[in-house]
Amino acid sequence: MDLIATLQCQDQPGIVHAMTKAILDCSGNIIENQQFTDPITNFFVMRTRFETNESIDLAKQSIQALTAKFSPIISIRESAKPKNVLVLVSKVSHCLRDLLYLKELGELSIHMPLVISNHPDLAKLVESHGIKFKLISNGDENEISGAIKDLDIDLIVLARYMQVLSTKLCDQMTGRIINIHHSFLPGFKGAKPYHQAYERGVKVIGATAHFVTKDLDEGPIIRQDVTHVTHASGPEDLIAIGRDIERRVLSKAVKLFAEDRIFQVANRTVIFN
Amino acid sequence: MDLIATLQCQDQPGIVHAMTKAILDCSGNIIENQQFTDPITNFFVMRTRFETNESIDLAKQSIQALTAKFSPIISIRESAKPKNVLVLVSKVSHCLRDLLYLKELGELSIHMPLVISNHPDLAKLVESHGIKFKLISNGDENEISGAIKDLDIDLIVLARYMQVLSTKLCDQMTGRIINIHHSFLPGFKGAKPYHQAYERGVKVIGATAHFVTKDLDEGPIIRQDVTHVTHASGPEDLIAIGRDIERRVLSKAVKLFAEDRIFQVANRTVIFN
Amino acid sequence: MDLIATLQCQDQPGIVHAMTKAILDCSGNIIENQQFTDPITNFFVMRTRFETNESIDLAKQSIQALTAKFSPIISIRESAKPKNVLVLVSKVSHCLRDLLYLKELGELSIHMPLVISNHPDLAKLVESHGIKFKLISNGDENEISGAIKDLDIDLIVLARYMQVLSTKLCDQMTGRIINIHHSFLPGFKGAKPYHQAYERGVKVIGATAHFVTKDLDEGPIIRQDVTHVTHASGPEDLIAIGRDIERRVLSKAVKLFAEDRIFQVANRTVIFN
Amino acid sequence: MDLIATLQCQDQPGIVHAMTKAILDCSGNIIENQQFTDPITNFFVMRTRFETNESIDLAKQSIQALTAKFSPIISIRESAKPKNVLVLVSKVSHCLRDLLYLKELGELSIHMPLVISNHPDLAKLVESHGIKFKLISNGDENEISGAIKDLDIDLIVLARYMQVLSTKLCDQMTGRIINIHHSFLPGFKGAKPYHQAYERGVKVIGATAHFVTKDLDEGPIIRQDVTHVTHASGPEDLIAIGRDIERRVLSKAVKLFAEDRIFQVANRTVIFN
Repeated sequence: MDLIATLQCQDQPGIVHAMTKAILDCSGNIIENQQFTDPITNFFVMRTRFETNESIDLAKQSIQALTAKFSPIISIRESAKPKNVLVLVSKVSHCLRDLLYLKELGELSIHMPLVISNHPDLAKLVESHGIKFKLISNGDENEISGAIKDLDIDLIVLARYMQVLSTKLCDQMTGRIINIHHSFLPGFKGAKPYHQAYERGVKVIGATAHFVTKDLDEGPIIRQDVTHVTHASGPEDLIAIGRDIERRVLSKAVKLFAEDRIFQVANRTVIFN
Repeated sequence: MDLIATLQCQDQPGIVHAMTKAILDCSGNIIENQQFTDPITNFFVMRTRFETNESIDLAKQSIQALTAKFSPIISIRESAKPKNVLVLVSKVSHCLRDLLYLKELGELSIHMPLVISNHPDLAKLVESHGIKFKLISNGDENEISGAIKDLDIDLIVLARYMQVLSTKLCDQMTGRIINIHHSFLPGFKGAKPYHQAYERGVKVIGATAHFVTKDLDEGPIIRQDVTHVTHASGPEDLIAIGRDIERRVLSKAVKLFAEDRIFQVANRTVIFN
Repeated sequence: MDLIATLQCQDQPGIVHAMTKAILDCSGNIIENQQFTDPITNFFVMRTRFETNESIDLAKQSIQALTAKFSPIISIRESAKPKNVLVLVSKVSHCLRDLLYLKELGELSIHMPLVISNHPDLAKLVESHGIKFKLISNGDENEISGAIKDLDIDLIVLARYMQVLSTKLCDQMTGRIINIHHSFLPGFKGAKPYHQAYERGVKVIGATAHFVTKDLDEGPIIRQDVTHVTHASGPEDLIAIGRDIERRVLSKAVKLFAEDRIFQVANRTVIFN
Repeated sequence: MDLIATLQCQDQPGIVHAMTKAILDCSGNIIENQQFTDPITNFFVMRTRFETNESIDLAKQSIQALTAKFSPIISIRESAKPKNVLVLVSKVSHCLRDLLYLKELGELSIHMPLVISNHPDLAKLVESHGIKFKLISNGDENEISGAIKDLDIDLIVLARYMQVLSTKLCDQMTGRIINIHHSFLPGFKGAKPYHQAYERGVKVIGATAHFVTKDLDEGPIIRQDVTHVTHASGPEDLIAIGRDIERRVLSKAVKLFAEDRIFQVANRTVIFN
């Protein structure tokens, strides 16, 4: 059995030592191991993938017992078991399409039982992939809350969902909602950012995937990327280029989450890539 | 003789036609030709490199005569003749070093007769390259103005010169002063930007080279680039990575200027790269 | 009407001049114009996109009349009219999926009436996109030849079609068949190239899209890209990374072709990107 | 004191456990820790940077005692102590200049007591940086061997040294000689590779830094990078672009070596970056 264990706690001497002992004790063979101590908070995070012939319960007991003195947050799961992902969309399809595409290609291991939208536009696309589609009114989060519970949702992906979520929902799903937004150097406030970017003559445009907090567009950054553009790209070209980078950055962030590679420390993330 | 002609005017039918006729008329052979019409302002820019056995004066007359009806701004010069560049620095050396390095390697064709600084720190470095170094007091632009006139300066490069230039100087040298500054997604105001970027957990850091206008850090962007960073880079690492990208972006912008590849249209640039 | 004209001939003085005159004469307004003279062969290529209220026939006549003395190869077509593309596949789907995906997203303007394969595996995928699928035996090119004629095929895309085409077909479709293959530094001969690359410890893997000639894998290169890999990527990881880069490079090459941006000069290409 | 320990041996359960115990025992605080098991050879490599108030000798004893049963190759050294680097050059300066530049900027921590060349061309450049320059005849390796012994050389860098080293020297310095060479897709044999690359119309050109073995250009790859080129770059432009990428790839490889980040496993490297 291939297991992924993650551990988070204040750094203290002996954690790796205890963790490796626990894995030895259940005859585990370490495949991947990464660790990091944040120098500002002194917070320690660790991700270990290991094989064992013992049960997941035994591995869990062994790790919990030996690391208990560090009071860590521990998670252990089978790497083969995909996470349950709820996708929220509005009208534009590029981010959703990329997730479906990578999923079907076998490069993104997630289970996507439901897509919820505040617009009917993408119903047919979603259903053609054998996925349930539910239309909601703006601001109505009942269906979302219901789905989280009923479908045991591990992650909500805002795939260009043009609605702000309630503080209540953000708090309930802290560290489990990923959003994508465009990013520019310099930044632009207000409407039509790609048009502003064109008028300002920017030479790169980018996208940022981040966890959602109640402070809109301010949660911990998971992944960013940019692409070079030239004067020859008009506003519509920039929008098309932006679509391309948005979908790639969001898909990569979802993949990192699906593989337990993202850790939140203070207002930033540690990514074991 | 290898000549570079640039032409700028409102777009009208027949400009390229007139320009190519003028070059034909002086037995010119076009080596490179690039043109662009900005869709918002309808402003047209064109850069043509051509060889001719005629004199530069004859080529100039031919082009002026045939394009006069478009009332263009025209420049014609020998591509082999390097531009005169005045570099302003303060204490840090990385951007200046990169310019000197590329110049000596033969990859950046500029003439650098003088470096002016408001700190004595880099005097020895500058002089070891056989370049005159002049120390000025903060805010004293007399030496700068004198040098512009006496040395026939084509371009001022602010190679991490930590002083704001006067509006008068900015106006006098419009489109001929290049500055470099760091760039982040999102942007940060205030002191210690790399420390702020670290605390915010950014995954890319960048730099922007731009023309200087009286609105600090707001002039037309010439070049931008970014580099990916991870959680493992602390504030000091980010500063080192920032140095690397700052110097590369600034050097590239200076090289583009040295080869007449930058055109300013409204508040943005057209770059024929 | 938005037209794309391309022109190719030995370089001589006056070509651009004649071309711009022809466009002026049919009241055309140039939107994009790029040109290049290959220094080795002295061959000249030019791509001009322009708008006109006149008919395409009138534009064609005007251009032909004024450029006749240069004996050029000329093509003029409406930019809005997509080219007919025949895709050949075998068993793996990633390249085909990417073409379908970009096509449906509206980022790749092609008409894809038929997919032909020597294996039945991808029939369902193809048909679910409303495209006809035809199964052929290995080496049987009758269906391919028939489709070229009946469907007025402009381009054949070998989207990981694991068969060598006959010299006859290669000659018939010179400059109109695009293939994708993996590329490594250094190169590897023989079976299982990704396994060889792993054993050799390469740090980048790449892909090359090229025109097909009778010399397998030796036609003019259209596009290449690479991605960085590390020791941590095993052979299977390299294959997955290779899939990602193959599909992106091939799709981009097809897009360049669809927009008349590729010119062949001797054994290399000029790309107006 | 800031120490870097590296450990290499066949993988067995308990190595990380033993290593972390040894560091705990000398009151060490782990700053960085990376490990990897090669899946083909089952060879394990580990790099640990840690702080301790104990002496380096005590740390060494502790690690040796606790890991002895794994029969590892161990190295422990102060991270602040730069390695001794001997640079060999011929006529071209770009790679040497980049090493000097980064060294003086404080971004490359090495000690460079001597440069040896088979041509006198770079003597002045080297001596202007306060470094000893020695001219040798082609094929005479006495000075090199003498310098290795007298100057306690840790690394030889072939900064475009156009001579093949003897098998004896290669064997003596296995894993301690780094070379740089250009790389193309596809590869080219014979003279003037950049001219061949131009005629073949390649769209990327690259460079590879590798350890030198007696099989020329075939040792374990340390780092590779490429840059995109277009049809507009003639052979001389490709050479200039190649210079830029060669120097960056070589400098990075030297920096990785200087920080004990390179491990050799079979014919490939593990890089802890």
